[in-house]
Parts: sequence; C-alpha cells; structure tokens
Amino acid sequence: MTPPVFDTAAIKGVTTPELVFTAVRDALIAHGHGRTTVPPPLHLQFPDDDGDCHVKAGWVTGTPDFTVKIATGFYRNTDAGLPTNHGLVCVVSAQTGQIRTILDDQGLLTAWRTAAAGALATHAMARPGAAALAVFGTGEQARLQVEWLARLRPIDTVLVHGRSQDKMRSLCEEFDAFGLHARPASAEEAAAADMVIATTPATAPVLQVGHVRAGAHVTGIGTDMPHKNELPPALFARAALIATDDHQQSLDHGDFGHAVRAGAATDTSDTPLGLLLERPVERPDGAITVADLTGVGALDAALASAVLRELAP
Amino acid sequence: MTPPVFDTAAIKGVTTPELVFTAVRDALIAHGHGRTTVPPPLHLQFPDDDGDCHVKAGWVTGTPDFTVKIATGFYRNTDAGLPTNHGLVCVVSAQTGQIRTILDDQGLLTAWRTAAAGALATHAMARPGAAALAVFGTGEQARLQVEWLARLRPIDTVLVHGRSQDKMRSLCEEFDAFGLHARPASAEEAAAADMVIATTPATAPVLQVGHVRAGAHVTGIGTDMPHKNELPPALFARAALIATDDHQQSLDHGDFGHAVRAGAATDTSDTPLGLLLERPVERPDGAITVADLTGVGALDAALASAVLRELAP
Repeated sequence: MTPPVFDTAAIKGVTTPELVFTAVRDALIAHGHGRTTVPPPLHLQFPDDDGDCHVKAGWVTGTPDFTVKIATGFYRNTDAGLPTNHGLVCVVSAQTGQIRTILDDQGLLTAWRTAAAGALATHAMARPGAAALAVFGTGEQARLQVEWLARLRPIDTVLVHGRSQDKMRSLCEEFDAFGLHARPASAEEAAAADMVIATTPATAPVLQVGHVRAGAHVTGIGTDMPHKNELPPALFARAALIATDDHQQSLDHGDFGHAVRAGAATDTSDTPLGLLLERPVERPDGAITVADLTGVGALDAALASAVLRELAP
Repeated sequence: MTPPVFDTAAIKGVTTPELVFTAVRDALIAHGHGRTTVPPPLHLQFPDDDGDCHVKAGWVTGTPDFTVKIATGFYRNTDAGLPTNHGLVCVVSAQTGQIRTILDDQGLLTAWRTAAAGALATHAMARPGAAALAVFGTGEQARLQVEWLARLRPIDTVLVHGRSQDKMRSLCEEFDAFGLHARPASAEEAAAADMVIATTPATAPVLQVGHVRAGAHVTGIGTDMPHKNELPPALFARAALIATDDHQQSLDHGDFGHAVRAGAATDTSDTPLGLLLERPVERPDGAITVADLTGVGALDAALASAVLRELAP
C-alpha cells in the first residue's frame, strides 16, 4: 500500500491557526532546550534554469514522526505562468522508518510555521502595549507575519515599506480587507514603529539603526543565506535582548552572524527564542529587542505531525 | 493535483534489467566525466530505536529530472515482523522544480542500481575469460550482484562465503534455482576465485591479500560508512588498476580511503569507474584489479527517470 498523499485543500481544511501556533510554540521550546534533531540541509542548484532545491529534515525528540521536506524555487517559472515554488513534506515514523504520508502542501506549511514563529517572537518580545507595527517587504511573508501577529495582539496601524509603490498599495489593500488600518511608509517612518518586522531578501540593511526608537522590537525573518542581510549590525549592538530560533544557523547565515562578524555582538549574546516563550519576557522600558529567525526543520516536523493527527486520526 | 505515487508492483512491471543497465552505465559515464550534481547526503539518527534515515539527491546534468531519495533503516523492526528498510524516491523536474512523481519503491531501485553498478564494474574489469566467481556475504546484494553479473557474462561456479552456514546454504539454493552452480566455500578458497565480490557490512577485512590470485578482479560494494572496511589496504597496493564510482566518497568512507590512510595507495591512484565503461579495459594478464563502490546519487536520478519514462510516457 502506497502512503496517502494529501493536497492543499485537505491540509487547509484541518489546519487552524491555533493548531499551528501550538505546534510551532512547542517545537521552538523543545528546540530551545536541545530536544530536537535538525541535520544540516541538503542543497542542489540548477543555474541554467535559475533554480534551486533545499531538502530539510527535523525531529522533536521523542515524538512519533519526523519529516523530510523538499522545497524548490525556479525563478523563471513565472515566465511560463507557473508558480516559483513547489515542494512537499514526507512524514516518516520515528519508530519504524515507515513513510506515513506525503503532504503535498506546495510550501503552505512552511509559510504558516514561518509566520507563526515570527508572530510568537514579536508578540513575546515587544512591549505588552505596543500596537504600531511596520513591515519591510511586500511579499507573502510580509502579509502573513502581520496577519498572524494580529491574531495574538491588537494592532492599531500597519506601516508598509517596500521598493514598489504598486506592491505597497496592494498589500495595504489586503490588510484593510483583513480589518487592519494600513498605509505605505518611508523606510525612516517604518523603522520608527513600536514593532518592526523585516521580511525582505535584501543583501544590505533595509533600515537604519538611528531610526529605531527606544522601547521598540525588531524581528528579522528574511535572512536565510550568508549573502543576505536585512538588519544592520549596529542594531544588535543597541539591543538589550537578542533572540535566535537556532543559534548555529543564525550565526552561520542570519543577521546575527553579520553582527557577530562585524564585532557588534559576541557570538554568545543570543538567547534561544524557545526559552522566551515559556514565561513573560522581562524587558526594561526603553530597551530595544531583536529576534533573528532563520527557520528550524523541527518546526516542520511538529506542524506536519499535528496536521496529520487531524487528517488521519 | 497531487503527484502520482507508483508502488513496487508498478515499478517491477516496467523495469527490465536492460533498462537498469543502460541507465546506470550512462549515469556512471556522466559521473566519471563530472556531468552530475551529487550534494552531500542528509542524515538523521534515532538511537533509542536503533534507526537511521539517509536522504540522497542526484542529477545527471542536462537531464529532465533529478531525484531526492529517502531511505530508512530501523534495525529492530524485524522483532515486530516489519521490514528493516523503507523509503521512496521523489522525481522532480530539473526545469521547473515541480514534483513529477513519487516512486514508492521500498528500496528496490537502490538495490537494482547497486547490483547493476557492481556487475558493470566486475564485468568491465575482470579478465574476459574469467568465469569462476566468489561472493562474500549472504544478504540481498550477495544474491543480486551475482545474478546481475550472470546477465553480462557466463559464470561457471559461484563460491559463497558467509558467517552463517544456514545462510550460505540457503543462498546457494537460490543460485541453483537461478541456474548457477553454487557451493559454500572458506574465505581462503573464495578469495582465490577469478572474480571476487564483497557485499558485507564488515568492519575488518573479510579476505587476505595473499589468497587473491594474479589476474583476479575484486569488487567491494559493502563499505558505505567510515567505520566499515571489507578489503585489506594491501590489496590496493597490489592492484594494477583501482576504480571508484565516486572519488571523494570512496576516499571519505570507502575501502579506497582505508588504503590511502594506511599508505597502501596514493589518493590519486584511482580511475573513475565510468571511464572504464566506455571502452575495453586494458589489463596485463597477471594484473589484479579492484573496484570500490560507495553508491552515487546520480544513479538514482538516472534510473528513476528511466522508470518514469516507462510508467508515464
């Protein structure tokens, strides 16, 4: 009998935000305590077609399943009217090695767990009363990070900063439809919000440290390769608290690594994000806090297991 | 639409030995010429259940598909009446990144491509008239290596050497049923055959170099981890020709690497197996030749593509 394959409609049908938040939160806490297995990913490149493939695996120690996730990005697909990204998640029994199921999620679960991890980090680390939010970037994660944070706390205003006026306006319209007050903003204005989320593929910092206000929190989720860099090293030097979802990954290819290599932070100055989700974060009133997230394979495992429990109880 | 999943019955229905030999030979030649992409594999361990998972990817440059292969081994499964090994192969478009299909082959394609690669190596490197074959080991690959070589050249006698008398006898019966004359043999007698194939998970050499005759050929396929070792370093010192399926892998975790670290061979003394498959190998009459095979991910891609062409033309 071949393993069952579930498509995005089936996955959407059972996956509530609560399910995602719970799975992601628990997995981040487990990861913060070292109770996960996350081997270095496997990577292929297809330069002639401007494509790549990442394979990531992860396991939360002691849980029934682990996952192997295949994600491709072929950046000329849009010319042929195809989506850029494809992929699936194989859920494998950690007791017998049997392939339990294939979630043909087209990257949906990765998008959701990334959004949930960012929202959990921003909510836990920002001042309790902070309600003005800015987002850098106008892509899928710009939208999701804001919408998922809005599920955790009230948001007064959303400032959107991107390079394209059209995309900024279009994203603001989506936020309005979601019930949030949003408007385009300059980089300077956006950087001065209570809460700032950076979601760009930038290779040079998108905001200036001098524009960030005392008491603000900044979450960066876009830097996932060594050549990318969204947040300036000097921001880490000003931060009273730095969280990383995975210390080694953030050091290797996150903004935290850029700050360490620039001498703006020591390589032990970060706290595992998971440990900040267990109890309220103590932050002095005027402190700046920063979260640098690079994506952890154990989150895929936890979320896929939770989804599979709903699909095939 | 979710990608189609094909089971072992469907795969067996279209996969002839000719298809496997052609795909594997072409992929070995491409790999010998550097026309492949084979990233380092991804590896997870589950010590509490004596299990592991390897994920391998491969691509023959310029071909339509690449593959990501998941293979698990849970060594206590037999206690529960389950197979030890599970796995599947995802076939992905190298032009668009779309998942084209999932071959739920349960490790069958890996077993076949390993058998075909070993048989091609042994056939190409052994003396043209050699017909006496010995195999070390009594597992699946012991059987397959012999049966697949018998498809390429006449075999007079098969000597079987293993640690269990029962398994030796049982394998000899299988060979008899396949039409080959087989009998159990001592390690000394087996090592003295015209053609020797080692297929064991041994961690110390299974044969003595003094027992190997002038003019013999030895193929080792069992050493796939740094702590494993089937062939003695001194055999590589005596060899006039050393072939590896992948130079770097054999150096890192094959018997060739043991020989190099023991000072019995230089790290440039091997020839890519693929280059020996393009034209008849020149070998002096009394020369000893050795092939050290560790398994190349590009073979998975080539074979899966060929199978898929038959399944979904």
